[in-house]
Amino acid sequence: MAKKIRKLKIKSNRKYGNVGDSPGMIHIDENAMKPVLRLYSYNQQEVQQSDGSNFESVLQQLDVCTNHTHWLRVNGLGDQNLLEQIGTHFGVNRLVLEDIVNTHQRPKFDDYDNYFFVTSRLITYHEDELSNCQVSFFVKDNLIISFQEDYSNTFEMIVKRLIGGKGLIRTAGPAYLCYAMMDTIFDLYFSLLNNLGDMLDDIEDRLYENPDKSIMYDSQKVKRTMIMLRRAIWPERDKVNEMIREDIPLINKDVKVFLRDAYDHCIQIIDMIESYQEITSSIIDVYLSIVSNRMNEIMKVLTLISVIFMPITFIVGVFGMNFARQDPVTNKVLPENMPELYSPHGYTYCLIAMFVITIAQILFFWKKGWFNRL
Amino acid sequence: MAKKIRKLKIKSNRKYGNVGDSPGMIHIDENAMKPVLRLYSYNQQEVQQSDGSNFESVLQQLDVCTNHTHWLRVNGLGDQNLLEQIGTHFGVNRLVLEDIVNTHQRPKFDDYDNYFFVTSRLITYHEDELSNCQVSFFVKDNLIISFQEDYSNTFEMIVKRLIGGKGLIRTAGPAYLCYAMMDTIFDLYFSLLNNLGDMLDDIEDRLYENPDKSIMYDSQKVKRTMIMLRRAIWPERDKVNEMIREDIPLINKDVKVFLRDAYDHCIQIIDMIESYQEITSSIIDVYLSIVSNRMNEIMKVLTLISVIFMPITFIVGVFGMNFARQDPVTNKVLPENMPELYSPHGYTYCLIAMFVITIAQILFFWKKGWFNRL
Amino acid sequence: MAKKIRKLKIKSNRKYGNVGDSPGMIHIDENAMKPVLRLYSYNQQEVQQSDGSNFESVLQQLDVCTNHTHWLRVNGLGDQNLLEQIGTHFGVNRLVLEDIVNTHQRPKFDDYDNYFFVTSRLITYHEDELSNCQVSFFVKDNLIISFQEDYSNTFEMIVKRLIGGKGLIRTAGPAYLCYAMMDTIFDLYFSLLNNLGDMLDDIEDRLYENPDKSIMYDSQKVKRTMIMLRRAIWPERDKVNEMIREDIPLINKDVKVFLRDAYDHCIQIIDMIESYQEITSSIIDVYLSIVSNRMNEIMKVLTLISVIFMPITFIVGVFGMNFARQDPVTNKVLPENMPELYSPHGYTYCLIAMFVITIAQILFFWKKGWFNRL
Amino acid sequence: MAKKIRKLKIKSNRKYGNVGDSPGMIHIDENAMKPVLRLYSYNQQEVQQSDGSNFESVLQQLDVCTNHTHWLRVNGLGDQNLLEQIGTHFGVNRLVLEDIVNTHQRPKFDDYDNYFFVTSRLITYHEDELSNCQVSFFVKDNLIISFQEDYSNTFEMIVKRLIGGKGLIRTAGPAYLCYAMMDTIFDLYFSLLNNLGDMLDDIEDRLYENPDKSIMYDSQKVKRTMIMLRRAIWPERDKVNEMIREDIPLINKDVKVFLRDAYDHCIQIIDMIESYQEITSSIIDVYLSIVSNRMNEIMKVLTLISVIFMPITFIVGVFGMNFARQDPVTNKVLPENMPELYSPHGYTYCLIAMFVITIAQILFFWKKGWFNRL
Amino acid sequence: MAKKIRKLKIKSNRKYGNVGDSPGMIHIDENAMKPVLRLYSYNQQEVQQSDGSNFESVLQQLDVCTNHTHWLRVNGLGDQNLLEQIGTHFGVNRLVLEDIVNTHQRPKFDDYDNYFFVTSRLITYHEDELSNCQVSFFVKDNLIISFQEDYSNTFEMIVKRLIGGKGLIRTAGPAYLCYAMMDTIFDLYFSLLNNLGDMLDDIEDRLYENPDKSIMYDSQKVKRTMIMLRRAIWPERDKVNEMIREDIPLINKDVKVFLRDAYDHCIQIIDMIESYQEITSSIIDVYLSIVSNRMNEIMKVLTLISVIFMPITFIVGVFGMNFARQDPVTNKVLPENMPELYSPHGYTYCLIAMFVITIAQILFFWKKGWFNRL
Repeated sequence: MAKKIRKLKIKSNRKYGNVGDSPGMIHIDENAMKPVLRLYSYNQQEVQQSDGSNFESVLQQLDVCTNHTHWLRVNGLGDQNLLEQIGTHFGVNRLVLEDIVNTHQRPKFDDYDNYFFVTSRLITYHEDELSNCQVSFFVKDNLIISFQEDYSNTFEMIVKRLIGGKGLIRTAGPAYLCYAMMDTIFDLYFSLLNNLGDMLDDIEDRLYENPDKSIMYDSQKVKRTMIMLRRAIWPERDKVNEMIREDIPLINKDVKVFLRDAYDHCIQIIDMIESYQEITSSIIDVYLSIVSNRMNEIMKVLTLISVIFMPITFIVGVFGMNFARQDPVTNKVLPENMPELYSPHGYTYCLIAMFVITIAQILFFWKKGWFNRL
Repeated sequence: MAKKIRKLKIKSNRKYGNVGDSPGMIHIDENAMKPVLRLYSYNQQEVQQSDGSNFESVLQQLDVCTNHTHWLRVNGLGDQNLLEQIGTHFGVNRLVLEDIVNTHQRPKFDDYDNYFFVTSRLITYHEDELSNCQVSFFVKDNLIISFQEDYSNTFEMIVKRLIGGKGLIRTAGPAYLCYAMMDTIFDLYFSLLNNLGDMLDDIEDRLYENPDKSIMYDSQKVKRTMIMLRRAIWPERDKVNEMIREDIPLINKDVKVFLRDAYDHCIQIIDMIESYQEITSSIIDVYLSIVSNRMNEIMKVLTLISVIFMPITFIVGVFGMNFARQDPVTNKVLPENMPELYSPHGYTYCLIAMFVITIAQILFFWKKGWFNRL
Repeated sequence: MAKKIRKLKIKSNRKYGNVGDSPGMIHIDENAMKPVLRLYSYNQQEVQQSDGSNFESVLQQLDVCTNHTHWLRVNGLGDQNLLEQIGTHFGVNRLVLEDIVNTHQRPKFDDYDNYFFVTSRLITYHEDELSNCQVSFFVKDNLIISFQEDYSNTFEMIVKRLIGGKGLIRTAGPAYLCYAMMDTIFDLYFSLLNNLGDMLDDIEDRLYENPDKSIMYDSQKVKRTMIMLRRAIWPERDKVNEMIREDIPLINKDVKVFLRDAYDHCIQIIDMIESYQEITSSIIDVYLSIVSNRMNEIMKVLTLISVIFMPITFIVGVFGMNFARQDPVTNKVLPENMPELYSPHGYTYCLIAMFVITIAQILFFWKKGWFNRL
Repeated sequence: MAKKIRKLKIKSNRKYGNVGDSPGMIHIDENAMKPVLRLYSYNQQEVQQSDGSNFESVLQQLDVCTNHTHWLRVNGLGDQNLLEQIGTHFGVNRLVLEDIVNTHQRPKFDDYDNYFFVTSRLITYHEDELSNCQVSFFVKDNLIISFQEDYSNTFEMIVKRLIGGKGLIRTAGPAYLCYAMMDTIFDLYFSLLNNLGDMLDDIEDRLYENPDKSIMYDSQKVKRTMIMLRRAIWPERDKVNEMIREDIPLINKDVKVFLRDAYDHCIQIIDMIESYQEITSSIIDVYLSIVSNRMNEIMKVLTLISVIFMPITFIVGVFGMNFARQDPVTNKVLPENMPELYSPHGYTYCLIAMFVITIAQILFFWKKGWFNRL
Repeated sequence: MAKKIRKLKIKSNRKYGNVGDSPGMIHIDENAMKPVLRLYSYNQQEVQQSDGSNFESVLQQLDVCTNHTHWLRVNGLGDQNLLEQIGTHFGVNRLVLEDIVNTHQRPKFDDYDNYFFVTSRLITYHEDELSNCQVSFFVKDNLIISFQEDYSNTFEMIVKRLIGGKGLIRTAGPAYLCYAMMDTIFDLYFSLLNNLGDMLDDIEDRLYENPDKSIMYDSQKVKRTMIMLRRAIWPERDKVNEMIREDIPLINKDVKVFLRDAYDHCIQIIDMIESYQEITSSIIDVYLSIVSNRMNEIMKVLTLISVIFMPITFIVGVFGMNFARQDPVTNKVLPENMPELYSPHGYTYCLIAMFVITIAQILFFWKKGWFNRL
């Protein structure tokens, strides 16, 4: 009868290294996907790309394309060897490698001497499944490496813009590309928030038309998603702010203008989350009040019916007593015992009395306002 | 019986650009209204005005009125071409154009080299419909352009004051005009808050006189409106504060005095919102307590009636049993079976006993205080 | 039966100017009282005073008393003409005049070149009526003007001290007088808080002795008063702090010592308000728990009684059935039909059985602890 | 049956001076105790002490002990004359005297030119009575005066340590003695918090074993005590911090090390209070849930019993109807009227049917899980 | 039937010194364990270790191993003599010794002239028992002493890494060892949080499948653990931050890089705790709503059944009345008394009427939606 309530599945990595491990230790999760590499080498004139998991081909292309900017996409983190090769070749600190692999980092920005490292959270919600992945960027003077946990094609549009070549994307350096990818993630947040907003609208419509208990569960799902989003976006804001404030050569003034725009987006996301949280609370409050009211209505009506039948049931009980008019054994007449039963119009009077009592009760309760809705 | 509860309709734009779009991309919403242009050119002596959507006539007037300050009103944002023409002619940054068109910006103040850009939210509440539009101002040395989403005549009074020519309005430059329009928006907030205050007064009156469930819904409507207002006014405060603090030539000392006044108004609005929120919570608490109390009252009285009838209904049941005084088959007399039925005054005694039990119960419950109100 | 609950009346001005009005516009409220002027001119030797609404006599006295400090009391703000005369004569800025007349300002301190302006809120609670008036002070080198909305004699004690001439009051200048009046307002806050404290004590006594629903309403009244107080005292604190921090000649070091004392009082008031708010919440929680417990007690007892009578009422029903021992038509004996009715001790056994069942039930419920209080 | 709930008595001074009084006015509370003076004059070699309320003997001892540090204990503040004598003799500012007498000050530290003044709150909880007294210290180069409201021997241990002469107490000056007394007050807070912790443990034990409504009341008592403690300890922390930060000769570097230790204690107290507050809330939540669950259990069982008896009571009612097989007047046989009553096994079948219905109901409810606990 | 709810046992030291004790007084708790000493002397080449409680052997090894770094592990704090020996030999301040022994310190970092002192909390949760122990570190140029309350082998992995000799552990000095142990404690926090996360997952599964009251209790256990964790981790964060910010020779730049990593871990732990707290609240809300809904369902169904039987039970009562068709004494016929009983099809009609009434009621309630779930 009632539709089955499904629990919100949360796909989030909680595994950590062992207690007491050395810092900089790389633990590959057993469920981690095999890495797929793609290298895009671009300058104002052209874009070259190579796919596959072969690191040699990547190195070859790097050798060939000398006056290009390179974007190395790494999808999947399940090969310790390959990651360490990348680390060694591009000079990535072991602590950074650890942060790339332990995919439960808060969004953060770490500035090293000749490169910087940025992590973001990628939160997606699809059919009652909430997933929280990590995307990280390693940015050097003419190189950006992006690391993603799975093969999802999040940055498809960026690739298109790169190949299309419009705007600043081919000329503004790797930090701009990093910004562009971060902004894409924010766009995904906006789109997720729009979905949540639609869900809230839908929940609210049901609330006013046909409230049932799915409202409680659906609100809780929205709430849970919101908790995760808020936990991701607050450090994201700090991160972007830090990128704007820090004075490092890799992030030039032009990129900072765009980062300021991204910062505004962060604030807008925070704003929307907080509004939605308040709306969710308000929906839950109204729902609880509706349930309680409706239940009260039902109980009141049912109890009123019981009470109206109480006295008349008592009366029929009275005239169902067997006090005898005549002792069957001695045949003695007992005139005081229930003379009403032997009155010619006793039954009629009795029915009239019960009718009057019923009407009187209804009038009394009606006057007290107990038939009104609360 | 119960009046139909209407959901609060919220007219608010939630559409954003596509995921991964370049920054500075202008997306005209398909429901956006066609722009209507009006140009007011004024100096201490005179005010000239031209209406219509024809950008050429605007340009002509700009050429003619050389020692005037110009106010270009743009109502409706549904023509990408026209907007880009305006942008190009007055040197508006593409990111600013994007902010003008994406009408979901937080109130903010952006200072560029030779102009500044301000956005405000215009929140109106009319017949259960809450709308949240964007108004933005582009201010240059002798020019102000105002952008509104619809044709609503919000700044009617400003036009009247401009034509009337009293006060500083014709002489204090475009930044003062910008202030005057922002202050008009604050006045609208005050007027909206006064309406909300009247609604709260009305809800509270109903709460003390005739509480029904509309109180819950109406309080929630006020609460929702308050959430939206608060989300708009907090960044508004920061914006005004920034305008006061920034040291830019366009906003001179005289205008800053008025901005400080506007800042005070912001704080007052925040104050009122917070007071109203607390009052709303307090109303909801009292309402829930009233409902629960009233329901309890009803259930208690009804249950008391049931319980009072319980034992006497049992008694009439007892004397309705058919234990026989004489076996009809053997005619054996069974003197122990219900001798009360054959006692001459059995019925009378029985009625007296039931009366006494009823009175005793009532006294007992009355002494326990169960007839008192909670 | 239940005492009538009265709503807390709140006398607070919410009217504002029209939307889009020029700043500095003076709107006299139509209910505003006619101004009554009183001028006290004092120095170490003497105090001269003149009463009445005649501004000329005030000007005369100002001319005569040249080496005096002047305190001009204005009670009632209902005469635009007079106020503008005062404004012009003493050089009061139009924005300040607007703030004096729009009696809904937050407490604030505005420092102008040769004078300063201070507003305070005067909150009083009398017989379920909460009023929130504005008092403002205009202080110049040897002049202080106080503006009050009504004729209430709030500063009676100050006048007495002035005439008595003890302490610093006659010699420490107009800023000290301003301090003294502000401190009087704080004293009124303390006295109001003491009343609220007494109300809370009284509510709490009733809570433990005889809780009824007036507790809910009275707590809400205290809460509402507290909301208003808190809204007034927080900016008051900031105001006093600003007066201490600002370096202006009118407020000398000696006055600042007293202002620091006033600041401590502010903090104490805030402290008391917060404590009282927590106590109020705690009272409401306990009340709701008591109501719920008491209701539960009643329902439990009533339902227990119902249930105890259920099975025995069933039994008497069974023996009230008319299964016949002998078919009246055929006279066939039906020995299986209710032989109990024809057993010599059937009735006695039945009574015993019902008694045993009742006792068994009571024992069972008692053992389950259902007679215990929750 | 239920144990009587006692209200938490709160002994706290709320009286203030009259509205509009001059600052520095000393109001002796009418219930104030007569002062008892004790003077301890000590140096590394010896400790001399004099008791009694005679100020002359104190002055004599001060004259005699010239190279000693003096500690003047004043217990009881009910003698305006004596306090003013002390004030005049030791050069205490009138505002300070007012703070000593108005025993409702927040903990604070006031630094004057050649002395400093410190107030603390002394909170004790004994047999449902919570008292909140003021202790204040006046510290000059070789003198400390402590003021307490009553004769309680709070600083007994300090006197013992002074006489014992171990540690720094005799040599580290009056500021160290002041620290030692403040630390004693913190120790009393710890001991009070331990008592509250034990109370919470006890409440929690009862919660899991035998929850009754005293849990609600006792939790509220703990909560109230906590509110008062928190109000006292937060400014206490600020006070100690200020004493550490201020650069005054009376508080030398060695004393500051100990003050830092006291500061740590403050933080620990704040921590414990906040933990206890969360635990208290959690206890109240669990209690409310238990009560509601238990009540629900009872109501469910009782209603189940009612419902199980409903249909079978109806059946016995049916067979209690008097539809006649034969009209007693006309003797006409009516074979359709209740033939069951005249069937040979009617009664047996009826009993079996009722039994089956009862079992079916129980099975149905059991399958629905309505016998399970929630 | 219901599983026994066990209270969460909390093993936490609350005993403090006596009121008014001198600072620096060492109170050995009577339950404190006897100290077990272990000394590890290591340099790049080798690791030497000695076990046992004999302080002489420790001193000997210190004499022998001159170019080593020493780690003295002290497990158990129950020997005042030994602790004072250690204190004296290594120059530990008495206040520090007091902090080591009073095992209720907040995590803190105290920098002294030639050493520093750090305390951490070690929180473990095992089979409904939550324990909160203190670990403290005393770090000097080539020495680190760790103090633990019990013999638990928390730092087993550190010893293994020390003996293994990989990484920086043997060469980076005692501050690195201190960091390594602190990081191990954070790893334990992560592992505890993972357990709590699993518990929450399990609670949530039960919530959706088979909610019973253990959910409330288990959530409260998680909440309690969280309160304790939060109280420990916030000052831990401040402590690590202080260690990074302070400029002391013992903590060199390399160690600070690792401390920054530890700081990130702190923030992650705080984040997880706050998320879990919100999830716990959300679980409790859903649970309370489920319980209330289920109870309401049951009550509604039961009451519906009662009400459906009410009118038909009344009808059978009516026809059970004994109004006589003929006076048994006078034999007078009373034709108006219950003629239905003597109608040939009276019984059949009566049964049909009751059936119709029942169906009508069910239809009515079904149409009202009272059979739907809320």
